[in-house]
Amino acid sequence: MAHAVSPLALPLPEMPALAGVELASVAAGIRYKDRRDMTVFRLAPGTTVAGVFTQNKCPGAPVDWCRAALKGGKARALVVNAGNSNVFTGRAGRETCERTAAETATLMGCKPREVFIASTGTIGVPLPTDVLLAALPKAAGALTEDAWGDAAAAIMTTDTFPKAATRTARIGDATVTINGIAKGSGMIAPDMATMLSFVATDAKIPAPVLQKLLQRGCDRSFNCVTVDSDTSTSDTVLLFATGQAKHPRVPAEGGPEGTRLLKDFARALNEVLMDLALMVARDGEGAQKLITVKVTGAVSAKSAHRIGMSIANSPLVKTAIAGEDANWGRIVMAVGKAGEPADRDKLSVSMGGVLIAAKGYAVPDYDEAPVNAHMRGREVLIEVDMGLGRGAATVFTCDLTHAYIDINGSYRT
Amino acid sequence: MAHAVSPLALPLPEMPALAGVELASVAAGIRYKDRRDMTVFRLAPGTTVAGVFTQNKCPGAPVDWCRAALKGGKARALVVNAGNSNVFTGRAGRETCERTAAETATLMGCKPREVFIASTGTIGVPLPTDVLLAALPKAAGALTEDAWGDAAAAIMTTDTFPKAATRTARIGDATVTINGIAKGSGMIAPDMATMLSFVATDAKIPAPVLQKLLQRGCDRSFNCVTVDSDTSTSDTVLLFATGQAKHPRVPAEGGPEGTRLLKDFARALNEVLMDLALMVARDGEGAQKLITVKVTGAVSAKSAHRIGMSIANSPLVKTAIAGEDANWGRIVMAVGKAGEPADRDKLSVSMGGVLIAAKGYAVPDYDEAPVNAHMRGREVLIEVDMGLGRGAATVFTCDLTHAYIDINGSYRT
Repeated sequence: MAHAVSPLALPLPEMPALAGVELASVAAGIRYKDRRDMTVFRLAPGTTVAGVFTQNKCPGAPVDWCRAALKGGKARALVVNAGNSNVFTGRAGRETCERTAAETATLMGCKPREVFIASTGTIGVPLPTDVLLAALPKAAGALTEDAWGDAAAAIMTTDTFPKAATRTARIGDATVTINGIAKGSGMIAPDMATMLSFVATDAKIPAPVLQKLLQRGCDRSFNCVTVDSDTSTSDTVLLFATGQAKHPRVPAEGGPEGTRLLKDFARALNEVLMDLALMVARDGEGAQKLITVKVTGAVSAKSAHRIGMSIANSPLVKTAIAGEDANWGRIVMAVGKAGEPADRDKLSVSMGGVLIAAKGYAVPDYDEAPVNAHMRGREVLIEVDMGLGRGAATVFTCDLTHAYIDINGSYRT
Repeated sequence: MAHAVSPLALPLPEMPALAGVELASVAAGIRYKDRRDMTVFRLAPGTTVAGVFTQNKCPGAPVDWCRAALKGGKARALVVNAGNSNVFTGRAGRETCERTAAETATLMGCKPREVFIASTGTIGVPLPTDVLLAALPKAAGALTEDAWGDAAAAIMTTDTFPKAATRTARIGDATVTINGIAKGSGMIAPDMATMLSFVATDAKIPAPVLQKLLQRGCDRSFNCVTVDSDTSTSDTVLLFATGQAKHPRVPAEGGPEGTRLLKDFARALNEVLMDLALMVARDGEGAQKLITVKVTGAVSAKSAHRIGMSIANSPLVKTAIAGEDANWGRIVMAVGKAGEPADRDKLSVSMGGVLIAAKGYAVPDYDEAPVNAHMRGREVLIEVDMGLGRGAATVFTCDLTHAYIDINGSYRT
């Protein structure tokens, strides 16, 4: 089932080549017909890797595989397929990962534990391993540095547009590049949309330092985006550093020197991750509006984040915004249901920059015209000040529309 | 906006008179036109009271009032209005409660703190207190023992059918009656649907004992029902015991003697609460199907409850059921996202009594025909066994349909 491109879609940026990364996307025919559904990355020797994975307690076999492989800190290849998530597939699922890694390792001349694997698509259907493996040599023979756009498209499932971002950063006097692609539309579904993202840089960064940078970046980006509160069994973000660029050495332990050297790199990485995360919200299943929720004045940043997510996940808030209704009462409700410290009589709520409710009251005679105009736009801003402390967080979501029901209520068959 | 009666609606039962309770419902004109929107209960001297309230941190003024009044343990009157929830109304909201209690106390010849108050409807709009108070004498003049059905209708907001239940129970050799009414359709919304329930009995039960019975009963009934995961700022359940029936004395401290005497009463009370809670799920906004989620084999009852609620609140599970799709992969996802102990390879999932997935695999060649027939029915049963321990819980919800979006995406005006 194809869906109309999201009205919030962004164009694919020009993606530069990145030294040490070759990619290819091919039509393996795992589930989709007549489209590329398998992507392979070949990574230069010496590539370090970091990863962040779903918190779901029933993860897919590829997540288990990557978590184990990550311990080595080195990567030489990535294999991604769309159409089958290899989740809840028991021993067969584990064997698929083992065989895929072994076969890829032979083709690439590396160790199986240097091969990373991600799958997205239907849950609970054994992945046709032979079909996947049969396509591997074809992909290995088609590797090129200029296929980032193809890869962004080949990893899509219910996504309505391909998602990619790129930045450059300075490390010492050198310029390095960061490229990233992502897919995701609902938080998960059989047939549907897990969030996957693969980011690479030509910088040379020790794995433990890379891991810290990625975790921090994800906390502010992917972990601040929600479509429907459902958490995929397959969510995976991987960051590869090929080490091909020439720049001052980053100490293995990071430390103050590492922080100083990587300050601009961290800025650029965070921008790539945020760009990609926002594209996922923009492609939320059925999304008509991108919603930004800014919470300030909470007792802590963690508390602010939880309050923000409570608002962003509230079906009543999201349906009101779909209906272009500045229904701030539902925002008060969502603040209260978060279970975080809240004082009704210190709370204020703004929409589109206009203060609507403050200190336990609706603001008498606030100007409704600009608020109503704001609600009719494609991007809606909700600001909540808790009036309690200095904790702040910003989270992103989309509205809840009829199209979400259409997409997710349809038969799998 | 009127909505079609839920296809899951149940008929209003014949409600008997209950000694010590007189009621009246009148058209006060607080917000609705041409319908009864205010209900008053007069309770016999000596009536004890128990209450359970929303966990929302931004509760309405009537919830604050009832929590304080409950400390006295005695009730002589209840005033309920529909159309305005008196939530987020600041000092004016508190004054509305104080004036309503004072005026009612004068009419009924009791203390203000023996008057209980509940409001449901729009958030953030000051309640027109004078309109409410003007209708009080009219209600007080119309009190009768035979108005339970009227009251069930007068407390409705977006509900599509009135909700009432009745049982008798034995205490010693005496027969006592328990009557209850409820309203609720979404978990909350301005203009919309908070969950309120008022239950009364002619039994004579000390307030602390009554409170324990009510809390336990709510834990198994109202606290096991969810429509959309949103928690009202006004949810209120009150239980009144008028003490008019003649039966052996229940010790003030309860104890083993109290437990023995009240065993059948507790059974009947739980049945009334469960009947009412299920009616709320049956009237969930846009509901086409009643969903029962049974979780067994969890590490504890609490864990089972959390897993059940994670399934029942998952938009992806609920949209799949709306689409009559036995999408068990989404159930696995929802189990995993609950954050409770789970072992993918010990988990099993049944739908309509048919085992679909077990021990980390889809059951090969399970019989799809009875499952598909089950999915087309009005009541859907999901059973999950965690395979870890003996914790069990059952929760109830409804499917997520286009009508939910219609109801909640419409303008308030």
